[in-house]
Amino acid sequence: MPYTRTDLAMEAFENTEGGAVPGVSVSHWETDCVQITEVLVTDNEAARELGKPKGSYLTLECPRLLERDPEARLATASLLTEELDRLLPRREGGAPVLVVGLGNRNITPDSLGPGVVDRTLTTRHILGAPCAAGRMNSVCAIAPGVLGVTGIESMELVEALVKALQPSAILCVDSLAARDSRRIGCTIQLTDTGIQPGAGVGNHRKPLTRESVGTPVISVGMPTVVYAATLARDAFAWLSSQSGDESPHEEALADMEHTLLSADIGEMIVTPREIDAIVQDAAGIIASGINRALQPELSDEEIAAMMD
Amino acid sequence: MPYTRTDLAMEAFENTEGGAVPGVSVSHWETDCVQITEVLVTDNEAARELGKPKGSYLTLECPRLLERDPEARLATASLLTEELDRLLPRREGGAPVLVVGLGNRNITPDSLGPGVVDRTLTTRHILGAPCAAGRMNSVCAIAPGVLGVTGIESMELVEALVKALQPSAILCVDSLAARDSRRIGCTIQLTDTGIQPGAGVGNHRKPLTRESVGTPVISVGMPTVVYAATLARDAFAWLSSQSGDESPHEEALADMEHTLLSADIGEMIVTPREIDAIVQDAAGIIASGINRALQPELSDEEIAAMMD
Amino acid sequence: MPYTRTDLAMEAFENTEGGAVPGVSVSHWETDCVQITEVLVTDNEAARELGKPKGSYLTLECPRLLERDPEARLATASLLTEELDRLLPRREGGAPVLVVGLGNRNITPDSLGPGVVDRTLTTRHILGAPCAAGRMNSVCAIAPGVLGVTGIESMELVEALVKALQPSAILCVDSLAARDSRRIGCTIQLTDTGIQPGAGVGNHRKPLTRESVGTPVISVGMPTVVYAATLARDAFAWLSSQSGDESPHEEALADMEHTLLSADIGEMIVTPREIDAIVQDAAGIIASGINRALQPELSDEEIAAMMD
Amino acid sequence: MPYTRTDLAMEAFENTEGGAVPGVSVSHWETDCVQITEVLVTDNEAARELGKPKGSYLTLECPRLLERDPEARLATASLLTEELDRLLPRREGGAPVLVVGLGNRNITPDSLGPGVVDRTLTTRHILGAPCAAGRMNSVCAIAPGVLGVTGIESMELVEALVKALQPSAILCVDSLAARDSRRIGCTIQLTDTGIQPGAGVGNHRKPLTRESVGTPVISVGMPTVVYAATLARDAFAWLSSQSGDESPHEEALADMEHTLLSADIGEMIVTPREIDAIVQDAAGIIASGINRALQPELSDEEIAAMMD
Repeated sequence: MPYTRTDLAMEAFENTEGGAVPGVSVSHWETDCVQITEVLVTDNEAARELGKPKGSYLTLECPRLLERDPEARLATASLLTEELDRLLPRREGGAPVLVVGLGNRNITPDSLGPGVVDRTLTTRHILGAPCAAGRMNSVCAIAPGVLGVTGIESMELVEALVKALQPSAILCVDSLAARDSRRIGCTIQLTDTGIQPGAGVGNHRKPLTRESVGTPVISVGMPTVVYAATLARDAFAWLSSQSGDESPHEEALADMEHTLLSADIGEMIVTPREIDAIVQDAAGIIASGINRALQPELSDEEIAAMMD
Repeated sequence: MPYTRTDLAMEAFENTEGGAVPGVSVSHWETDCVQITEVLVTDNEAARELGKPKGSYLTLECPRLLERDPEARLATASLLTEELDRLLPRREGGAPVLVVGLGNRNITPDSLGPGVVDRTLTTRHILGAPCAAGRMNSVCAIAPGVLGVTGIESMELVEALVKALQPSAILCVDSLAARDSRRIGCTIQLTDTGIQPGAGVGNHRKPLTRESVGTPVISVGMPTVVYAATLARDAFAWLSSQSGDESPHEEALADMEHTLLSADIGEMIVTPREIDAIVQDAAGIIASGINRALQPELSDEEIAAMMD
Repeated sequence: MPYTRTDLAMEAFENTEGGAVPGVSVSHWETDCVQITEVLVTDNEAARELGKPKGSYLTLECPRLLERDPEARLATASLLTEELDRLLPRREGGAPVLVVGLGNRNITPDSLGPGVVDRTLTTRHILGAPCAAGRMNSVCAIAPGVLGVTGIESMELVEALVKALQPSAILCVDSLAARDSRRIGCTIQLTDTGIQPGAGVGNHRKPLTRESVGTPVISVGMPTVVYAATLARDAFAWLSSQSGDESPHEEALADMEHTLLSADIGEMIVTPREIDAIVQDAAGIIASGINRALQPELSDEEIAAMMD
Repeated sequence: MPYTRTDLAMEAFENTEGGAVPGVSVSHWETDCVQITEVLVTDNEAARELGKPKGSYLTLECPRLLERDPEARLATASLLTEELDRLLPRREGGAPVLVVGLGNRNITPDSLGPGVVDRTLTTRHILGAPCAAGRMNSVCAIAPGVLGVTGIESMELVEALVKALQPSAILCVDSLAARDSRRIGCTIQLTDTGIQPGAGVGNHRKPLTRESVGTPVISVGMPTVVYAATLARDAFAWLSSQSGDESPHEEALADMEHTLLSADIGEMIVTPREIDAIVQDAAGIIASGINRALQPELSDEEIAAMMD
C-alpha cells in the first residue's frame, strides 16, 4: 500500500483499495445533491491501519458547491446542522458551547477556522438580549492562532479557556489536507474524535480530544490543500498503472520527492489559485450549519440580524 | 472643581489647580527632549480625590514625537526601557512576562495595545533558538480583544491565561483618554497600579491589577482621544475665564452636553484626523522600549532580525 | 453670523438662522421614517453666502438608522434609489457609470467611499454573463485613494480614467463633516454639484464637477465627523445664549481654538467611538441604494448573488 | 520536448535540454552569493521556440535568501539596483518613473507586486520637500489590481495613467510561475520585454510593453508558484528517466492531468505553505533594490525616514 497523507478518513479507507478492513464499516448514501459516506472505526488495529483514531467519520461531498449553487449550499448547510445536532451533547444549564477556529488567518488555505469563527453567532455575553431572551443557547468562539496571540500554542490557549469557561462541548473547525484535489472546497468531514497531532494544514502539535480536555470535542473540517508530495506520487502511480508497470518502490518515490520538492522553504502544497474565495465561501456554509445547530429556536433572519 | 475625565494621573492632579493635595507628591524633571512627571498617590483619600488608585504614575512627554523626530523617538524609547526595568520584578526561572495589548484592533484610537503586541518579540516558544540560546527571557503576548475572540471578555481571557502560564509579571498596554488634546500621541504614562474599571478608550469593565490576578501588573498607556464632552466643557471654561465670568454651573454644562452631544451613537470622542498613523507610530516606539527592557542581553539588531 | 464648517447645505442654511436668503429655496417633507430637505441654490450671491455652489441639495435624515432598524434601512435605501434615478442621466449605449469612492480606506471616518465601492456591483467586465445578459447596465468603480496608489492625486486618477472610459455619469461617494454631531451616521446628502475643493473629511484639493471633467457628477455623502473647533464654538455659543450673554467675538473664539486645539498633529475631529461600525453600516445602505438605481432590471437577489 | 510552463526565460532554455539554440545566447556568472544567468533572445524563431519575446532576461538566484540571511539580502538588492540602473533610461526633466505592482493583493502568491508598491518611496507629490529638495527623482506607484478597482482591467488603468502622467519609464513587478519549485522565493528575473499576455500568476490578458504603451517597460518578477500540472509531469518524467523508460506520450500526460487535476475550481498551483511570509520578505528586498536605483542621491537612511 503506497504511503499517502490525507486528513479524510474516507480517503484513508479508499487507500486500502476498497477491500474490507476488519474493524471498519463504511456506508454510503445520497440526499439531494450531497453524497454522504460514514466510516466507523471500531477497533484499535483498524485505527492503526487507517491512521485514524477509533470513532465516527461522516463525509459530505457536493461538487456543486464549487459552482456556488445556492441550492447546493443550502442542502449542505442543512445536512451539517442535522449531523451536528446528532453529535452535540444536549445543552444543559448555562454551560456554553465553545467554537474553536484552528489555523492561521494569514495563511490562506489554513484560514478556514478563523473564517468560521468570524461568522459564528456568539451569545454568551448577550444571553439576556431583549430580542431573543430565553431562546438562545450560550455560545462563545475563539480563533487562537490569530496574530494577536504569540508565544502561546493554540491548544494551550484552548485548554486554559476550557478550564475557565467549562463548556458543555467544543466544536473545532480546521482546514484539512486531502489526497484527491477534486475534494478541495466541496467536502466536509465531521467527526467525534477531535483533533489529532499532525493533522490539519497547520499540523497541530498537541491533541484536542475528549481525553485531553475532558469535554466532548466535535470537529468539522474541509480540505483546502493536497500535499505536493502526494500529488507527485499519485501522478506516478497513475501513469504506472496505465502502462501496466508495477508500482514504483518507495525508495524511488522518496528520491523523486527529494529531487523535485526539497526546497528549504517548508512543505509544498497544491491548492487552487482561487483558494481565498473558496475558503471564504466554505466558511459561510459551515458557519450557517453551525449557527442553526447551536440556536435551534432562532430563525435564519434573527441569526442574520444579530450577526450584523 | 469642574468634573473632567482623564486617564492621566498628572492631568487629574493639574485639575486640582496645582495646589498641594495631601497624600500626593509630584516631581518634574527633564532629560534630552522628554519632560518627566512623577505623581505618587500615597493615601486613600488622595486616591479618591484624584480618582486614581494609590501607586506611582510616571508620565513621559515629548511633543517632538509628533514630528517623527528620530532622536526624540530614540530618547523616549530609552527612557521607557529604563523605567520599565525599574518597575518590572526581577525575572526568576523560566516564568514568562505576559504582554497584554488591550483594546479593539478595529477601533482605530483603541488599537494601540494590539499594535504593540504585533511588534513585541515573543520568545516563550523559541527559548532554545540557536542564535540566542541562554540570553533570552521568556515573553509571550496576547491581544485579547481582537475579532478572533467573541463572547469572552478580555479580562476573562487574561485571567485564564495567567492561571495557565503563571507569568512573573503582566505588562499591559492600552489607549488612554486625556483632557488636553495636545497630549495625544506624544505622552506615555507608566504605572504599577494596573488597569482600573472604566479606564481606557475601550472602558474596561473589570480590573486587571495585582489584586485581581495575583501577579504584578505594570501598565503603559498613551492618550489617543479626548472625550468630546471634556473638550466642550473646557472650551466654555476657558472663554468664561477670559471674560472674567464665573465658571458655569454643572447643570448648564450637563444641559449643553445633552443638547450638543446626545446622539444615540455612543460616546463622542475628539481625535486627530491622522490618528491611524499616530497610533502605528506610537506602537513602534512603545514596543521598542518594551523589547529592550525584556531582552537586555539582545542587541537592537538581534531583536530586529528575530522579529522579521 | 458665526463661522461654522459643514459640508451639508441644509446646515449652511440653518446657520443663516432660518431667515429667508434670496436665491435659496428650501422645502421639507417626510415619508415613512425619513425626513427630506431640499435646498436649491439658484444664484451666485446665495452660493457665496452659503459657501455652496449653485445646484440642488437633497438631504435624507433618519435617526432610526443608528438603531440599525431594518425597516429604516430599507426605506432610506429606497429613497436614495429613487432620487439617484431622478438625478442620473438616462443611460445611452454602452457607456458605463463610474462610481468613485473618495477618501482613505485607512482613516476610518474617511473610509465611507471605499466601503461603498467594495459593495458596488460592477458589471463592465461581465456584461455578457449568461445569468443577466441584456438586463445589466455597465458599471465600474474605483477607490482612488487606497494604499495601492501613491504619488498620484485621487482627482488626477479619476480624470485619467474618465478620459479612458468615457462614462455617461460619475457617481461620487464621500465622507462629510457636519456641524451637528447628531447627524453623523444617519444623514445622506445628494447633490448634482459634484465635489468641491476643501470639502469632505479628506479635504479634496481639486474639484470633481461637470465643469472639471465634462461628465455629469452626482455626489452622495454622509457626515462621519464634526470638526472639534466647530463643537467648541457651538458649546460656547449655546452656553452664552442660555445665560443671555452676547455671542463671543471671533477673536476670543480663535484664541480658544489656538489654546485648546493647536496640537501639531493635524486637525482635530469629533466622531463617535463606534465610527468603524457606523461607516460599514452606512456603506451597505448607500451601496444598496446605488446598486438598485444602476441596475433597475435586476432583483435584489440577483444583485446579491452576483456580488458574492 | 515535453511541454512545460514557466515565466523564467532561463527555465525555458533549460527545457531545450541545454543544447545550443540558434538566436539564443546564455551566459552565467556569480558574485558573492548570487548566481546570475543572462539569456539573450535575438531572433524571432528563437523567441517562438522558447515562448519568450526577443530581448534580454537576467536571472539572479540566491538560495540563501530563503534562510533570510541579511548578507544575501543585501547582496541581492544591490545587484538588482545595478541592473535596474543599467536598464532604466536616463531620467530627463521631471517625468516620473511609474512603478506598477501587478497582481491581486488578496491572492497570496499573486500579491508580490502590490507588496512592492507598498514599500516603494513615491516622491512625485513631495519633490519640493525641504529635506531632499533637488536630490529626488520623481516616482509614483500603483497597484491596479487591488480591491479598490473593479470592472476595469489592470492594463486599462495603467494605460490611462501613462497617458496622464507621461512617465519616462514603467517598472512592473509581478509574481511568476516557475518550473522548478526550488526557485520559488529566491530567484529574481529582470527583463526589458515588459509583460506578455498569459504570463504571471494572475495570467494577464493584455500586454504591457514598450509597443503597447510607447514607454520603456522594465519588468521584475519572482516565482511564487509552480503549476500543479507541471509538477505532476516532472514527477513522471523524473521517474521514467530513473527507470530507463522512455518519456510518456503527451496523450498519457494529458489523461493523467485530467484525472488527477480536473477539478472545477480553476487551476491548481504548488506553493510553499509559508508563501505569505516569503512574499512579504521578497517584496522588501525588491523594493529596496528599486528605491536605491530610482533615488541614487538619497542614502538608505533618508529613504527609510521618508518611507515611515
